[in-house]
Amino acid sequence: MTKGRLYLYDTTLRDGQQTQGVQFSTDEKIQISTLLDDLGLDHIEGGWPGANPTDSDFFNAAPKTRATMTAFGMTKRSGRSTENDDVLAAVMNAGTPAVCLVGKSSAFHVTDALGITLAENSENLRSSFAHLVAQGREAIFDAEHFFDGYKDNPDYALEAIHTAYEAGCRWIVLCDTNGGTMPHEVTEIVTAVINSGIPGDRLGIHTHNDTENAVANTLAAVLAGARQIQGTLNGLGERCGNANLTTLIPILKLKEPFASQFETGVSDAALKRLLPASRMLDDILNRVPAKQAAFVGASAFAHKAGLHASAILKNPTTYEHVDPAAVGNTRIVPMSNQAGQSNLRERLAKAGLAVEKGDPALARILDRIKAKEAEGYSYDTAQASFELLARKELGQLPKFFEVKRYRVTVERRKNKKNETVSLSEAVVAVKMDGQRKLNVSDSLGEDGKDQGPVNALGRALSKDLGKYQSYIEDLKLVDYKVRITNGGIEAVTRVIIDSEDGQGNRWSTVGVSANIVDASFEALVDAINWKLIRDRAPL
Amino acid sequence: MTKGRLYLYDTTLRDGQQTQGVQFSTDEKIQISTLLDDLGLDHIEGGWPGANPTDSDFFNAAPKTRATMTAFGMTKRSGRSTENDDVLAAVMNAGTPAVCLVGKSSAFHVTDALGITLAENSENLRSSFAHLVAQGREAIFDAEHFFDGYKDNPDYALEAIHTAYEAGCRWIVLCDTNGGTMPHEVTEIVTAVINSGIPGDRLGIHTHNDTENAVANTLAAVLAGARQIQGTLNGLGERCGNANLTTLIPILKLKEPFASQFETGVSDAALKRLLPASRMLDDILNRVPAKQAAFVGASAFAHKAGLHASAILKNPTTYEHVDPAAVGNTRIVPMSNQAGQSNLRERLAKAGLAVEKGDPALARILDRIKAKEAEGYSYDTAQASFELLARKELGQLPKFFEVKRYRVTVERRKNKKNETVSLSEAVVAVKMDGQRKLNVSDSLGEDGKDQGPVNALGRALSKDLGKYQSYIEDLKLVDYKVRITNGGIEAVTRVIIDSEDGQGNRWSTVGVSANIVDASFEALVDAINWKLIRDRAPL
Repeated sequence: MTKGRLYLYDTTLRDGQQTQGVQFSTDEKIQISTLLDDLGLDHIEGGWPGANPTDSDFFNAAPKTRATMTAFGMTKRSGRSTENDDVLAAVMNAGTPAVCLVGKSSAFHVTDALGITLAENSENLRSSFAHLVAQGREAIFDAEHFFDGYKDNPDYALEAIHTAYEAGCRWIVLCDTNGGTMPHEVTEIVTAVINSGIPGDRLGIHTHNDTENAVANTLAAVLAGARQIQGTLNGLGERCGNANLTTLIPILKLKEPFASQFETGVSDAALKRLLPASRMLDDILNRVPAKQAAFVGASAFAHKAGLHASAILKNPTTYEHVDPAAVGNTRIVPMSNQAGQSNLRERLAKAGLAVEKGDPALARILDRIKAKEAEGYSYDTAQASFELLARKELGQLPKFFEVKRYRVTVERRKNKKNETVSLSEAVVAVKMDGQRKLNVSDSLGEDGKDQGPVNALGRALSKDLGKYQSYIEDLKLVDYKVRITNGGIEAVTRVIIDSEDGQGNRWSTVGVSANIVDASFEALVDAINWKLIRDRAPL
Repeated sequence: MTKGRLYLYDTTLRDGQQTQGVQFSTDEKIQISTLLDDLGLDHIEGGWPGANPTDSDFFNAAPKTRATMTAFGMTKRSGRSTENDDVLAAVMNAGTPAVCLVGKSSAFHVTDALGITLAENSENLRSSFAHLVAQGREAIFDAEHFFDGYKDNPDYALEAIHTAYEAGCRWIVLCDTNGGTMPHEVTEIVTAVINSGIPGDRLGIHTHNDTENAVANTLAAVLAGARQIQGTLNGLGERCGNANLTTLIPILKLKEPFASQFETGVSDAALKRLLPASRMLDDILNRVPAKQAAFVGASAFAHKAGLHASAILKNPTTYEHVDPAAVGNTRIVPMSNQAGQSNLRERLAKAGLAVEKGDPALARILDRIKAKEAEGYSYDTAQASFELLARKELGQLPKFFEVKRYRVTVERRKNKKNETVSLSEAVVAVKMDGQRKLNVSDSLGEDGKDQGPVNALGRALSKDLGKYQSYIEDLKLVDYKVRITNGGIEAVTRVIIDSEDGQGNRWSTVGVSANIVDASFEALVDAINWKLIRDRAPL
């Protein structure tokens, strides 16, 4: 059986930019277009030339892509010819091989929002798309509010898209602009459109996630016959976002009946780059990656329940619907008070700690974790602190140094200019090789600004650790998370610290105390100890 | 036409707890069960009695709910009788009116994961559910891996659920445990189950979001005839989460054909509390609310595109699929300064600050909020700090006292018994009525335990404020939340403090600084100032 072809149309750079708080620079747009092109998408919608300087600059830079670069705009306005519409002219002047124009297909929007007659709107559609075709462009109609329009006035909705189709549009894209359409409605309406005479391989689907159905609506349209899929990386987009290509691509490649019936431009190798591409976009936007994201989330293949964890060690297909490696992801079997011994052994093995089945240390470690979790610790993410705890129970925890005491001072006062200034200072006394070392650091960064007491403490601690100093020289604190676990100012504070070394290794440690400085201190000490063990520092 | 009844079954406290990084305390579980009960859900699954101390403590506390409290467990194990299975006994001993037991319905899982025969598994199901019924409990079968099992071996999958049904189960819950089933498959399989003789009003649906189809799969099952819906608040849950009740509830209440065909236990008034409930859960978990969440996200009704924004001011239905107020949300039109000002006037009026339309102070306040939010402040929840900011721009902020300086010391050392002890001490210099006051406090609680530097600082600050002392005597700090807003240890720390007075009034203040003690201090000072204004303390 020959497979049908599905076409992937990315609008991260246009509709994705409507996300609240997102504003791409031209350079970022170029970076993202490379990312999209490497995945093997068919169209990249780069923006609206003429609508803002960034979009115009992007098209001027004209990045080379295998994907068909597409400019977005709107159909010509009433009362002027296609040739005299300066908004449309700016779009054409971008010189892209494909042009997508948004236009009305909902009678209510034509008469109420636009305030023109239905016949006028149809004529605007006809002449705009005829113009694109005459100029040798691939013409794409973004049929705004198509589903709501169809439910309201099916005759006009069909008239609008047939007008564009007959004017030579390659793609008629059915848009659920407000995101309120349900999947079963998409099935019915796309079927009705195909029955009206527009073949499925000329139809696209563009959905929004306002009811969490953007992916389902897209799949429903494909099953009904549509062949172009519009969406964005990581589901960026206005309000609740657009259909998420990061989810749709693996579904189309890995899940049935899509995998058997269709092919896309995304190779198996490109699919493995999906997770890095998703992360890179978050990086560009300085966003924390969504842990629970389908396929690419850090938790997407994390098995916490004890029942699941033990079965998955026997056979991964028992609790995984696809292989995490297919999208560049990995399986995680974290600790928690629901975890069993098999879960624990797997996790220890990953840390290079081979423990025999039935070893009584396993029960001791689990008990210890349970007790610590009751105090407020959490080892799900703090793998390095988990390893230190396990090593202690296994008698494999070297004691490199001992912190005898520390003192941190936080001061705020007005200076002579009556400005408020604050400064912290930390003193740490460490004992190693039978000797005492006393180190001090303040909290001022290279820019002379106060960076707070935890920073001062971290710097004092790692200022001079004698023979271990070379091991921790490149240690950097890259993230710091605080949470109060019991409510109330007298409750317990949990601090998670992420550290990184010069080779890009990253590890997480945890500290818990009623005192936030103390909790931070504990996590800092764990971070150093873990690094010394990992690098096999001598005792 | 009489409407059918849909039953909502919440598993936030059980399956939701499988979320990576989530670990509820017993108190938090009780708080959340109240939240769920206020929404009008039908069942609350409280956890697995006997599996861990928190879940056992929760059932021992036995919070009173209108919803049917449900204990979760698993069907009896092979090789012992129902009466002699201690795991099952612990579940029964929780004494809940309903009990939900997970059991196998996939032949592959019975033989490969469990390693028993199909007949043995059926007998385990039969005797377990017969036992529940004999004990007078509402019996619920969580049919694990039902959809995958059905695709693999439909005969055994049906045998398993029919066995439970005939043993007297009130609900047979079809679970997509691995989250890989597509919506069209759910439609087919639920239809086949009903055709096999189990009526739809005895069927539940339990889905996971591994392909972003949990909501769509749930709706597909309902349209095929299932009548119980399982899910979690905010879509918490293992891996990519469970079906999101925060999305499903408004769909069932507001979208067609669900709204016309069905009723639920959620009233229109409760639906308006959906957003606050969602936020409160995030608060308990100290999670940043997902802006793009369907219905309840802060961006869910934010209209950024210029075209949309101007149309929506004419007629909201042009770009909104439901009324945001129905779920307690509000429209955001960031482009429109006018909408911003009317929102602001409304918020000021609530604080007793009447400001005329068009007052130039309104634009100044909006600018100031924008600038502060860029620094990391957030006034969404910190209403008291928002009021102080507005008062300052309005020239209505009395200056009761001035903090000239403070100093906080945090020390940790070993005592003579070689125990590690820590202590904080705070000194605060305040100027009021032209006089200086110097106050000191340490961090030791009534139990002699260290409560950390912020506590010491709060106590020193409120130790002696002269003529204002009587106003703040009953002031208590009841919650303290910390968030790092920029990532990295050098990033900015945002502290939110909730305060309470003797009459049960509660208010929230915010502080931001690179220095966590400083940020806390700022929020503490705001808390005191707000209280003095509220109680009309004299200058």
